[in-house]
Amino acid sequence: MSSSATPRSGIEPGIDTLDIPTADIDADRLLGRIEAFARIGRDAGGGITREGFSGADLDARALLMREARAASLVPSVDAAGNILIRRAQAGPAPVDRKVLLIGSHLDTVVNAGRLDGAYGVLAALEVLQVLAESGTDLPHEPVAIAFANEEGALFPQPFWGSMALAGRLAELPADPCDHSGQPLRGPLARAGGDLDALKTAVWPTESVAAYLELHIEQGPVLERAGTRIGVVDAITGRTVLTVDVTGASGHAGTTPMDHRRDAMAAAARMVSAVERVAKDDALCRVATVGRLEAHPNSPNTIAGSARLTVDLRDTDPGRLEHVEAAVREALRTIAGQTGTQVEFVAATRSSPVATAPALRAAIARSAEELGLAHQTLPSGAGHDAQMVADIAPIGMIFVPSIGGVSHVPEEDTSPADLLSGARVLLRTALRV
Amino acid sequence: MSSSATPRSGIEPGIDTLDIPTADIDADRLLGRIEAFARIGRDAGGGITREGFSGADLDARALLMREARAASLVPSVDAAGNILIRRAQAGPAPVDRKVLLIGSHLDTVVNAGRLDGAYGVLAALEVLQVLAESGTDLPHEPVAIAFANEEGALFPQPFWGSMALAGRLAELPADPCDHSGQPLRGPLARAGGDLDALKTAVWPTESVAAYLELHIEQGPVLERAGTRIGVVDAITGRTVLTVDVTGASGHAGTTPMDHRRDAMAAAARMVSAVERVAKDDALCRVATVGRLEAHPNSPNTIAGSARLTVDLRDTDPGRLEHVEAAVREALRTIAGQTGTQVEFVAATRSSPVATAPALRAAIARSAEELGLAHQTLPSGAGHDAQMVADIAPIGMIFVPSIGGVSHVPEEDTSPADLLSGARVLLRTALRV
Repeated sequence: MSSSATPRSGIEPGIDTLDIPTADIDADRLLGRIEAFARIGRDAGGGITREGFSGADLDARALLMREARAASLVPSVDAAGNILIRRAQAGPAPVDRKVLLIGSHLDTVVNAGRLDGAYGVLAALEVLQVLAESGTDLPHEPVAIAFANEEGALFPQPFWGSMALAGRLAELPADPCDHSGQPLRGPLARAGGDLDALKTAVWPTESVAAYLELHIEQGPVLERAGTRIGVVDAITGRTVLTVDVTGASGHAGTTPMDHRRDAMAAAARMVSAVERVAKDDALCRVATVGRLEAHPNSPNTIAGSARLTVDLRDTDPGRLEHVEAAVREALRTIAGQTGTQVEFVAATRSSPVATAPALRAAIARSAEELGLAHQTLPSGAGHDAQMVADIAPIGMIFVPSIGGVSHVPEEDTSPADLLSGARVLLRTALRV
Repeated sequence: MSSSATPRSGIEPGIDTLDIPTADIDADRLLGRIEAFARIGRDAGGGITREGFSGADLDARALLMREARAASLVPSVDAAGNILIRRAQAGPAPVDRKVLLIGSHLDTVVNAGRLDGAYGVLAALEVLQVLAESGTDLPHEPVAIAFANEEGALFPQPFWGSMALAGRLAELPADPCDHSGQPLRGPLARAGGDLDALKTAVWPTESVAAYLELHIEQGPVLERAGTRIGVVDAITGRTVLTVDVTGASGHAGTTPMDHRRDAMAAAARMVSAVERVAKDDALCRVATVGRLEAHPNSPNTIAGSARLTVDLRDTDPGRLEHVEAAVREALRTIAGQTGTQVEFVAATRSSPVATAPALRAAIARSAEELGLAHQTLPSGAGHDAQMVADIAPIGMIFVPSIGGVSHVPEEDTSPADLLSGARVLLRTALRV
């Protein structure tokens, strides 16, 4: 569990009722902006493809900066390509004033929906604009941020921008290239970044008082419960195992059943075993085999080998360790039963990250004031917040996803919920 | 079961001992030719890729015709591209003399071994050459044949040449194209065939006294039993179902287990169910899922759909029907249990084909005379013989496959077994 599980000094959000009746978001403006951004990278089928640092992403970034300037705000781009939006300063910035960072990302996966990421960025812009227009001053300087390349759809380094900001430079590739081998350097420069100056994108640990991220849930929990606001208690940790199964290829017609070492049949049992650890044994929250490749994958040939990925998630690091061990044991047992060999060729693990209890309380109180039913839930997906948690307390607000779907064109949230989420974000920001 | 299960008129092979001590195959010549053909289409890794009507196939065909001419035999090509090799006729061919057809095919799958097909063709050439050189006359005219495109690896119509010869023109595509859309017409013409004259490649039903095919077993049965010669009693029937499973795609991190309709998990259970019908329930000889494609096949995404192929084989048509019904029922049940939908989008069925009992007896007797242990077994793979069975009694001879493997570079048979098989073929031909 991250050390950000407890609030840092300097954060004592009030839990009393706020009295700021004049400050409210502009509903038409926010929904209009969401619609405008939904047109960038949209194809004929309605899906949005705006991979980080692609042409469509550059278009979206440019629009965000135009909108900020039109609102008399000041956009800038750091070396990693993150877009920062601040209020105009009359004089020199006060020394030692911490930042209240609010944001998400603009980039998408391939054939995505319009809300994942963009909603949080545009709500952050709206909050900043309302604060500026209402002349509301906060103890910390509010800054809206659009993190670069959160999805990693084109350049396969997800959380690129938030990892740079959090100082995780050693984990970033020195010369990132996209899936076709094109280097990031050029697209990053066109976006206003500078690969050689990445160090300047790192923020000191003491600089951020709190990070708030508003996001669609991407799952069905809130919708099924009829709850309008989700208070995220933790971003789940994730362990991804890449598993190779080796059997013996053979002719599907001539090889007797008792002579087979069928990698497909073995892999199939492994898929079922992975499902079982979460569904029946409840050893972790979710377990998924999303990818399976068999070779030669021919109708007429017994598969000689197969590769599958096992995705295990939980908010408890101890359970994650335990379920990984259980999966490895189960897969080895199946290999023994099927005459195949199993090899764990790669394992990537990200630890669960807890949100700050004080920010959770502030979010919950804000929802209550607005008369919105709320509930606590973990985030099954990864978010920039989990990187920012390295240097700051984080808080996350979820709104319901219709049908529980995301990363598809059908991804959606009702306008009422989109507005409620932004209102909770604004009130929480006022509280911090 | 084909009507060729009983011998046709004109076939009364003697089962007494043959007395032809001078006629024997030339071991060095046969093994030398097998080696020469193994160099055509061989890549650096040792695998042979000689897809029907590819450049490598044309090279192999040209070599076969050169070898035939050098042996004072007469090669010709029919409209389907089948290569026929006959003995030179001094005068006009006798009217009403039937043909004893002996052969197999020269084409291979991708990355194949050297024996599947080529062994039977070269042994047929050897038999014809021995008969010619020894001046041995038979009641029927012996003809060696190399059927075109048995595998269908490039132009996806397996048994192309033998289907044409057997008169199955209506089942052949009118304008066959390879996997990249290139039409067969040109390559067929370069091979000496003529797409517009396919009808001329059809043989009348009464024209063939018997068809003999010598082939590697491609399975482990003979090797495991320590038997040198296999007498094929039937070529198994085959039912191939193409099955689409439709679930619901979703985020692997955000979709709770009890909210999933995971097409991969459902497909995995179906793979296990298919294995079970053969392995545990013994409803058919073999059952295989060799191909499985999930979509989007991404580690982070629950599969929304999957397509798999189910390959069922048995020598009994009733059992084949029964096991197909059982598989359909089992898969529907799994779909119901997993909240997915299953659709059987294609079904191709080939009936089991029995060999002629008289030819089986002739093969067995020939093996005994040569002191070779033999056993009866079905062929799990398809062969040109099953097409020729439409118009003639068929007999098939198997030799052991080392390790039971085929369609891989490691496919092999010991030189002693290769020679034994050819000797049994020669003696059987003398008997017919």
